[in-house]
Amino acid sequence: MSGNKRTDDQKTTLSEVDSRNILKAFGVPVAALGLAADQKEAVREAGRIGYPVVIKAYGAGLAHKTERGVVRTDLRSENDVARACHEIRDAAGPDLEGFLIQPMIQGRREFVAGLFREEPFGPCVMFGLGGVFTEAIADVTFRVAPVSRAQAMEMMDELRSAALLGPFRGEAPADRGQLADAITGLSRLAMERPDVAEADINPLIIGPDGSVLAVDALVALDPAGKDRDQGEDKGSGASAEEIRRALEIMTRARSVAVVGASRNRKGNFPGIFACMRNFGFSGNLYPVNPNIDEIDGIKAYPTLTALPEKVDLVIISVPARLVPDALEDCIASDNRRIHIFSAGFQESGEEEGIRLYHRIREIAQKGGLHVIGPNCMGLYVPQNRMLTWVHAPKTPGPVSMISQSGGNAQEFTHFASRHYRVFFNKVISYGNALTLDSTDFLDFLARDPDTSMIAMYIEGVRDGRRLLELVSRTNPRKPVIIYKAGMTESGARAVSSHTGAMAGDRKLWDAFFRQTGAVRVESVEEMADAAAAFHYLKSTRGRRTAVLSVGGGAGVSVADTCSKMGMDVPALSAETIARLREFIPPEGNMLRNPVDSVLAFMNLELLGKVFDILSQSGEIDNVVVSLPLDWLYDPETGGARIDAVADYLAENGRRLLPGIPLVVVWRQFVDSDEIRGKADVLSDSLLEAGIPVFDGLRRAVGSLAKLAAYCEFCAKAGDFQYR
Amino acid sequence: MSGNKRTDDQKTTLSEVDSRNILKAFGVPVAALGLAADQKEAVREAGRIGYPVVIKAYGAGLAHKTERGVVRTDLRSENDVARACHEIRDAAGPDLEGFLIQPMIQGRREFVAGLFREEPFGPCVMFGLGGVFTEAIADVTFRVAPVSRAQAMEMMDELRSAALLGPFRGEAPADRGQLADAITGLSRLAMERPDVAEADINPLIIGPDGSVLAVDALVALDPAGKDRDQGEDKGSGASAEEIRRALEIMTRARSVAVVGASRNRKGNFPGIFACMRNFGFSGNLYPVNPNIDEIDGIKAYPTLTALPEKVDLVIISVPARLVPDALEDCIASDNRRIHIFSAGFQESGEEEGIRLYHRIREIAQKGGLHVIGPNCMGLYVPQNRMLTWVHAPKTPGPVSMISQSGGNAQEFTHFASRHYRVFFNKVISYGNALTLDSTDFLDFLARDPDTSMIAMYIEGVRDGRRLLELVSRTNPRKPVIIYKAGMTESGARAVSSHTGAMAGDRKLWDAFFRQTGAVRVESVEEMADAAAAFHYLKSTRGRRTAVLSVGGGAGVSVADTCSKMGMDVPALSAETIARLREFIPPEGNMLRNPVDSVLAFMNLELLGKVFDILSQSGEIDNVVVSLPLDWLYDPETGGARIDAVADYLAENGRRLLPGIPLVVVWRQFVDSDEIRGKADVLSDSLLEAGIPVFDGLRRAVGSLAKLAAYCEFCAKAGDFQYR
Repeated sequence: MSGNKRTDDQKTTLSEVDSRNILKAFGVPVAALGLAADQKEAVREAGRIGYPVVIKAYGAGLAHKTERGVVRTDLRSENDVARACHEIRDAAGPDLEGFLIQPMIQGRREFVAGLFREEPFGPCVMFGLGGVFTEAIADVTFRVAPVSRAQAMEMMDELRSAALLGPFRGEAPADRGQLADAITGLSRLAMERPDVAEADINPLIIGPDGSVLAVDALVALDPAGKDRDQGEDKGSGASAEEIRRALEIMTRARSVAVVGASRNRKGNFPGIFACMRNFGFSGNLYPVNPNIDEIDGIKAYPTLTALPEKVDLVIISVPARLVPDALEDCIASDNRRIHIFSAGFQESGEEEGIRLYHRIREIAQKGGLHVIGPNCMGLYVPQNRMLTWVHAPKTPGPVSMISQSGGNAQEFTHFASRHYRVFFNKVISYGNALTLDSTDFLDFLARDPDTSMIAMYIEGVRDGRRLLELVSRTNPRKPVIIYKAGMTESGARAVSSHTGAMAGDRKLWDAFFRQTGAVRVESVEEMADAAAAFHYLKSTRGRRTAVLSVGGGAGVSVADTCSKMGMDVPALSAETIARLREFIPPEGNMLRNPVDSVLAFMNLELLGKVFDILSQSGEIDNVVVSLPLDWLYDPETGGARIDAVADYLAENGRRLLPGIPLVVVWRQFVDSDEIRGKADVLSDSLLEAGIPVFDGLRRAVGSLAKLAAYCEFCAKAGDFQYR
Repeated sequence: MSGNKRTDDQKTTLSEVDSRNILKAFGVPVAALGLAADQKEAVREAGRIGYPVVIKAYGAGLAHKTERGVVRTDLRSENDVARACHEIRDAAGPDLEGFLIQPMIQGRREFVAGLFREEPFGPCVMFGLGGVFTEAIADVTFRVAPVSRAQAMEMMDELRSAALLGPFRGEAPADRGQLADAITGLSRLAMERPDVAEADINPLIIGPDGSVLAVDALVALDPAGKDRDQGEDKGSGASAEEIRRALEIMTRARSVAVVGASRNRKGNFPGIFACMRNFGFSGNLYPVNPNIDEIDGIKAYPTLTALPEKVDLVIISVPARLVPDALEDCIASDNRRIHIFSAGFQESGEEEGIRLYHRIREIAQKGGLHVIGPNCMGLYVPQNRMLTWVHAPKTPGPVSMISQSGGNAQEFTHFASRHYRVFFNKVISYGNALTLDSTDFLDFLARDPDTSMIAMYIEGVRDGRRLLELVSRTNPRKPVIIYKAGMTESGARAVSSHTGAMAGDRKLWDAFFRQTGAVRVESVEEMADAAAAFHYLKSTRGRRTAVLSVGGGAGVSVADTCSKMGMDVPALSAETIARLREFIPPEGNMLRNPVDSVLAFMNLELLGKVFDILSQSGEIDNVVVSLPLDWLYDPETGGARIDAVADYLAENGRRLLPGIPLVVVWRQFVDSDEIRGKADVLSDSLLEAGIPVFDGLRRAVGSLAKLAAYCEFCAKAGDFQYR
């Protein structure tokens, strides 16, 4: 994918002395190390370092020292040292170049830290449980470099074995400052020395007094790495400014040519030309097709060069084998902004597709083309009445989307608009990312004044570092919701068959989400749920949630679900319960949390009282109202009770809970179209009032938890600008 | 809750020698231990055991030996031993009663094992990572005793650090046989010696040669434990046979009296009397209410004694404070089969409710009453036209349900029947379990010839061991699906407010599910999904799943979801792909797995070919067809394509995939009632053909994974009788 791969064959491992010196220079606390040519010098060095010491053979030919028998530990005297030197000399034979002497570091707590480089992120830092258990327990965490001190501290807390860093069996807590020195030192080394391919500290020992020392450390160089960042270009070759300008023109296009426009439907798909017309595109729309004269009374042109004007956007919708010619026609007519709808390139996995991909890549680079696609659905911009697929709402909104999959772009926009009345500004489906990648679109949308939230569906990305930087910068102002697919083995294989992208490594993507604070979702529906929560609620003060429900069993499920999803359902204080009890009798009305009160839904004044008391208690950050529509529906009045609850909540809910997000959940189990119809009416009136409504508790609480995590992240970063 | 609590104040800890002797007698491999009165004997014992040795002070007053400085390790000679005895004598002072001598066991791999007793399960066994990391890493697993050798082996594999038991850094793999001896020995000790309150082996060391030795071990006795199992009765006092007979009569009741029957609605609830009548109960139905003469023309009686006959079932629906009198009336009229609908007892948490609970408990015990409830919805038996709530399908089916929550009983039966046409035989909502508990109902339903699957919603259980035994025995014949609520802290608190039950400890419930093979679900919807999969599919040969879908992005999500849910989406072999390629062209049709082919849905002959080839390949255990209805729906034909796909699948799906479960998933994102209507039609015709249909992939794959896990468990237990 790029020149930055780890090329194991070219790497050279530095000596222990050189390795340590580099690490020390970057602030990593390393144990003293003496180098001695012979036994006499070894004794002198041991005296300087202080007993007890460890002695190892030194020599380029000596790997796997313990196995070779050239390590002696716990030497307590000059005699011990002399004997050790003898034995090591015998074991090492001609490979021996000298002796390494270091203090015998005592400490039962062993950790590991390191740096390495891995696509698509480049330099990364690792920290975890070390010693003999490193592989067996695999308790490690990662960050993409550079790593701040605060991030280093977070890494310590993320380990399952974090308790080892606290006071431990009579030993002092680990010196977190020194640990942070080690982690950030590795990070700076990675950033400042592109020739350093990897570094590995194992063990990093915590002494009984909490002090931290790297005891064994190796650094490997990759001379080719010096040219890192001057290697193969990861983008299209165009400047960011050029690309922004091109995307600006494409999304506001006033003239569009459709190469391969046709009168024939393909199954249920009427063709892009028809889609644009049906959606009401009002600019100039040119069919380009040498085999027809007109479509629907609109004159067709044989080539782009025959068009009366240069257009803002060319859409190519011809069989894959004809795409190279179409691109040459773009160059000939000086039309450089292109969406290639056609599929059948590297994603097919077939020889011919891969050949065609390399062909069009060459043409695009030669011609300086800005290409969305191929193998994608393209653009949906309701403000500009642009749509290259069949159905989408005409209402514009504040959310934009970047999607590597056309299907997911359609499903997300349908789902979010239908269930949550969340609408869209610019939606870009970009498929194989021939020249323009998700990073280019994100850079553009981050600056787009009409976009206030960005949703991304990504399978792979060429420049992970740029993505990380862009998301980090954008997220506090415009929440970035990301569905990163291909995170499982099967998924990753499907990704490579879908768009030919590399799916990246799960542990590094975990780090990506931790570092950027991006909102992580794992399905299109979850993405829509989160978008709704962010759109309507904007922020929350915390995770303490009161749940108002009906029915005891449901209340237990509610509390379980909240807890699993990371929200707290704290017990209400005795005072708050007493205040509630003034209005609500005990029988059948349980007032802990969840608050289970049929009465409050039968007498809405009471519901208002409950809101009031919860709001004043200071014990609650969010309120979830869970409505069992089957229970509330009275067939004799056609569900008037549900309407009354909906009206009351719409009118009073936000007023009575100032600063406290209110979320409504409805549940329906009885098979009844009437009740289902009521759910739609309820939903409409609450969304109209700015109260998000979810079908089922998981969606609601899961989304609230994402909002809470987002707010916590931004607040901690001191960088919270989304309102 | 019972007499079996751990009563720390009564426990006495045995000496190390006695502790070891007990463990040794039960087959636990323990390190040799010598006892010496003085230094001379110590030297002799050390010689017998073999150097190096460890010496500790021995004495009843000597706890925390390491801290007291009365332990000396790695003694390599008589001199070392003599010096150690001196030092220990000085440090221990008058507490010294002698010396313990044991071999210095070498081994970097330290584990921990133990036994303890905890409600509701009684004796349990623990195994995990030991040594200094025990608390910090908390890598432990549990079983309810008795633990078989096979279960002991499973426990080893469940640890995150299981790799330490394999070949490890030049050391031999652990002797799993010896580890199993240790675990099963603890289990037998727990079962055979009720006076043993707990035992704790830490560390259990794995030597470099893989040998296993308990190095430190303590056993604590609880003299009161001798009377265990003769303590407070956990059930109603009645024999299992009596209870079965009572439940038989209650569920087939031909005469029912409703105490507190009334003409008044309570909100949307018309009252139990009206519910029974509306559902068409055809036996004798008597209203009992001293304040009215008749309801709906049916004569009312002032008391049960005034009734013309003894009835099969009395339903009590009066305010809580009147329940004691109603129960006395039951005793006076010799009516002992009762459902108490009324709430307001211990679940309220209020003093009056708790007092009333104790009162009715006393009356029930005195009168030998069989009580379902209080605080519950009672019985739904469609065959017998019994229903004590408002809506439920009249069609009977093979699934029975036991639910501590009436709300969840209603939601589950609605959901399963509405979405999956899965119907019910006997549904019992039992609330606070005054006399009859989930175990009594399970015992009854396990023998019920009309019940072939059992779903349970449990918050707490009185006799966890009996539940474990019953579920273990029933599950291979009739799958037992269990939603155990209150597994999170918030949920557990809500449970105690709901039915006053203890929710038990998550780690022990984990063990419960592992041991019984019960199908674990975490919501009512998941329960319905699983019931549908089990009902229609019965079994699967494995987890290898082919997914047929449309659209690349969706395919990636599909693979990710399957993988997350524990199903494999294996790459198809080159031969199978080549066979598929004979019929399906490359462009837009990706043939790895997921198989992404629009064409197969446009030309159903092709779909049949795909099924055929997959079936013959031997590479696939399950097939999931994922239908994007929005794509398939052609408005011009009113969705004829969807009908065609549904008809084809219904007619040919099972025939073309013999022995391979076929599951259909539909997705709809466009807001269209027409498409939604098509989903219902599709669903009906496929369910009719015995093919389960799920709304969304997670439900489908999650349920398939549960079925696969169930089949694996039963096959391993050699006890698979569900067909």
